[in-house]
Amino acid sequence: MKRIAIDMDEVIADFHPKMLATWNAHFSQQLTLDELNLFNLHQDDPDKLVEIFELVGDPTFFADLGVIADSQRVIARLSEHYEIFITTAAMEVPTSFNAKFQWLKQHFPAIKPSNIVFCGNKSIINADYMIDDNVINFANFCGEGILYSAPHNRHVTGYRRVENWQEIETLLL
Amino acid sequence: MKRIAIDMDEVIADFHPKMLATWNAHFSQQLTLDELNLFNLHQDDPDKLVEIFELVGDPTFFADLGVIADSQRVIARLSEHYEIFITTAAMEVPTSFNAKFQWLKQHFPAIKPSNIVFCGNKSIINADYMIDDNVINFANFCGEGILYSAPHNRHVTGYRRVENWQEIETLLL
Repeated sequence: MKRIAIDMDEVIADFHPKMLATWNAHFSQQLTLDELNLFNLHQDDPDKLVEIFELVGDPTFFADLGVIADSQRVIARLSEHYEIFITTAAMEVPTSFNAKFQWLKQHFPAIKPSNIVFCGNKSIINADYMIDDNVINFANFCGEGILYSAPHNRHVTGYRRVENWQEIETLLL
Repeated sequence: MKRIAIDMDEVIADFHPKMLATWNAHFSQQLTLDELNLFNLHQDDPDKLVEIFELVGDPTFFADLGVIADSQRVIARLSEHYEIFITTAAMEVPTSFNAKFQWLKQHFPAIKPSNIVFCGNKSIINADYMIDDNVINFANFCGEGILYSAPHNRHVTGYRRVENWQEIETLLL
């Protein structure tokens, strides 16, 4: 049985709208979803990045993220044909461990805890496919990276790209 | 650079003496280190296993474990020649996340958070070597398992076995 490693934030957990609301409230701005790009911050405004990590470091930040449309239904179908692991870079925000674990328990109760991975450098993951929005995770990955579209990765080429979970369903089933 | 995945409990973190003291105090017994074998409990006394998971589930249980002799020195040397990841089955005891992360920060500050993995099923780990006391983790591992001796695995054959970190130093350096 082939194995799929699935990221959390921006792939099954709707991180971006919560981040946008938190950003706009904190900095008194009115950015839109497409205007907010945290991936440029380390170059453009490193001080702001430190502030962002403090906001995201609130142990409850990840507790109430929405669920990305169709991810529950499609993952349930995929699990009949593939081994499913959730692989999230939780080590970047260690205060998120408990909220992320509880979120998965609540929204994806069929995924066993033994198939959840909190990691950092995802080259440690041994899988056939990795569905992720962050292209850095594909660099030394042993399988095929499938890029889940997000505002911050629109410019990226070189990987199969999916816009939503319906496209993953078509691609892998 | 080849990669080594290193387990925590019974390999770098001295879980067994703490477990023994906790067991003896809780059950008013006087077992010795060699007599306590949690790996037989699921057959011999499943009710006791539930109690043990409750004791170990105390969020502070893993905070004050000792450091296995020579592990710090040898891992520092290994890291000059290998990529080092810490891979621990923390998903079995989700209340341990914070204590385990803080323990690593305290005793192995040179290991970057991005090289720490909290997982369950370790077949997800992509490495050349895995140093672990639990042979179940080698079953579908893509590299070579190196068995770190512990009372519960004395009967196991079929893997290279090491008794201590000095032997790992000799084996891998």
